[in-house]
Amino acid sequence: MQPSATLDLSLELLKQPSVTPDDHTCQDIISKRLSQVGFKIEKMKFEEVDNIWARRGSEGPVFCFAGHTDVVPTGSLDAWDSAPFAPEIRDNKLYGRGSADMKTAIAAMIVATERFVERHPNHNGSIAYLITSDEEGPAKNGTVKVIETLEARNEKMQWCLVGEPSSTTKLGDIVKNGRRGSLNAKIIVQGKQGHVAYPHLAKNPIHLAATAIETLCSTTWDEGNEYFPATSFQISNIHAGTGATNVIPNTLEITCNFRFSTEVTADELKARVIDILEKNQLDYDITWNLSGLPFITPVGDLVKATQIAIQKVCGYETELSTSGGTSDGRFIAPTGAQVIELGVLNATIHQVNEHVNVADLEPLSEIYEEILVQLLT
Amino acid sequence: MQPSATLDLSLELLKQPSVTPDDHTCQDIISKRLSQVGFKIEKMKFEEVDNIWARRGSEGPVFCFAGHTDVVPTGSLDAWDSAPFAPEIRDNKLYGRGSADMKTAIAAMIVATERFVERHPNHNGSIAYLITSDEEGPAKNGTVKVIETLEARNEKMQWCLVGEPSSTTKLGDIVKNGRRGSLNAKIIVQGKQGHVAYPHLAKNPIHLAATAIETLCSTTWDEGNEYFPATSFQISNIHAGTGATNVIPNTLEITCNFRFSTEVTADELKARVIDILEKNQLDYDITWNLSGLPFITPVGDLVKATQIAIQKVCGYETELSTSGGTSDGRFIAPTGAQVIELGVLNATIHQVNEHVNVADLEPLSEIYEEILVQLLT
Repeated sequence: MQPSATLDLSLELLKQPSVTPDDHTCQDIISKRLSQVGFKIEKMKFEEVDNIWARRGSEGPVFCFAGHTDVVPTGSLDAWDSAPFAPEIRDNKLYGRGSADMKTAIAAMIVATERFVERHPNHNGSIAYLITSDEEGPAKNGTVKVIETLEARNEKMQWCLVGEPSSTTKLGDIVKNGRRGSLNAKIIVQGKQGHVAYPHLAKNPIHLAATAIETLCSTTWDEGNEYFPATSFQISNIHAGTGATNVIPNTLEITCNFRFSTEVTADELKARVIDILEKNQLDYDITWNLSGLPFITPVGDLVKATQIAIQKVCGYETELSTSGGTSDGRFIAPTGAQVIELGVLNATIHQVNEHVNVADLEPLSEIYEEILVQLLT
Repeated sequence: MQPSATLDLSLELLKQPSVTPDDHTCQDIISKRLSQVGFKIEKMKFEEVDNIWARRGSEGPVFCFAGHTDVVPTGSLDAWDSAPFAPEIRDNKLYGRGSADMKTAIAAMIVATERFVERHPNHNGSIAYLITSDEEGPAKNGTVKVIETLEARNEKMQWCLVGEPSSTTKLGDIVKNGRRGSLNAKIIVQGKQGHVAYPHLAKNPIHLAATAIETLCSTTWDEGNEYFPATSFQISNIHAGTGATNVIPNTLEITCNFRFSTEVTADELKARVIDILEKNQLDYDITWNLSGLPFITPVGDLVKATQIAIQKVCGYETELSTSGGTSDGRFIAPTGAQVIELGVLNATIHQVNEHVNVADLEPLSEIYEEILVQLLT
């Protein structure tokens, strides 16, 4: 195996059991490396969450690498073939919790930055890092708060690359240049408990809601657009009944989620859901949780630099996508920054035996470096 | 308060904490009283369940009183205003678990039989008692097994009066002359788990089943007939989802129940449900439990005798009904016997502070006696 600075730093980070919100010294490791190449490190701790804002240079434009050191829990250790926080290479794959999501990307960013600074010590603009340890958890005291702090002092970034694992079958095949919005709802339909033998004395909330559920599931919410697939609606949970087979339940509880495009707004979706519930004359209670607005980074400096870099390093064209789950990009895009996500393969994220191809680590670092070259030289 | 033999015997039975399947000596008390007036007592114990078959006379026709000594559990004792097995009279109501369902009816049957035998020692035919302690539970080793034993030796009853609490607003206002059938189904719809952000990689079983559920809830299964209300369908439980709001569930589980008339058969209902599931191209598993076939006792000797008796004792007309839950009558009717249910008010059965009007006890005993007079003299 070739010696690899990205692999070495990845191993160092992967040994830290940094389950949200515990950073477990990862940010110290990162800060030490960045300060050695001229970054000014600003620790921003909000409640129990460690964050850093690091910047090299004082001029604009600002290019920012964004990422998180926290990882999701391991689940049952028995299910892992090797200990999740004792990174191990088998069959040219690096196993460990966080290997795909997203400690190797952080390592690749730092190694890329080190090389770039060595070669271009007087680059244009600034390079910045926004690193949190609260991406996989409540996401209340991480990127949101750092961005609030930066906005309050009018410190802007022009471009932001989030190191989320965007690749699907080969490194860099997909770059996310936006994300759908995410809107959750919890609907409680009120009925009246009773005995199944006396349905006229009860109100079965399942029966009352059946048509509304059918309508919600079969509605076309929009057709999407050139950047977004059509808005999707999914019921994740439905529950009614106590287990007794002869009792009509009192209430029905549904939780559901929209992943929505820029063709509709959250308020429009809410109004359309309420309209369906009202038309079915349901006695209901609904609570909403808007966990992210949709954002889009059209083709411009950042996207073009990324396309060129991937073509140069990998020899193929990348594809732009807005599908998949949410990321902290949703908190950065509203500042006006161009935001993309680019990282390793996402096939095993949040799973047992999470892993990444060792052979992808240095090329990812080279892509990141080439993007810096495209934008800051 | 007037002295009342029915009240005295009721109190004696209500003191026994005879929660299914524990008879707790109730049948000894009953056997002693019946043997004193010429009944031959046959104990029929099946597994842990005590039953008795008692008969006075060897000729036909046989008139049988049927009932159960077991009661449903008390639930939290704190919720009761007086101890459930320490019967207590307050405001002319007798409180205690089993007071309505159905120890007072058993007391009324015995007192009625004692008076009748004293006045008509040489009555026609035979009087019988079928008493079980497994009506409120699995109903496997009670009436079912006694009837099997009687059928095996070709011992038939012509008429059977089950002492279930049939009355709704005043004593004897309703007589049940049949019962709907009861068919349970458990349906599991198979989907494919996935992330709500990638619905195209998953199959949401709630969405797949939504139209089928709507169809099941809105179908008219029959219109009923002169004896039965329309067949009813009720979903008692619906469950899918693990609680996570971003996971499309793997399976959907539904339990449902038909209360059905004689206008459809259980097989027809099964076929129609399966047809709906198939038309929606669901990947499903279904298990059926037929807990009772419908039965009807048309107006004849037994119904007429009962109508006359209620008119004589209460001064008003009774109404025939087939609504409500199942009873052990479903096991007796298939032998060819005419079966009715007549007992006290059912407003508080299976509830805390179960009670019955003290003033209804002697009149119920008189109705039972008059029915014997009508049929056996």
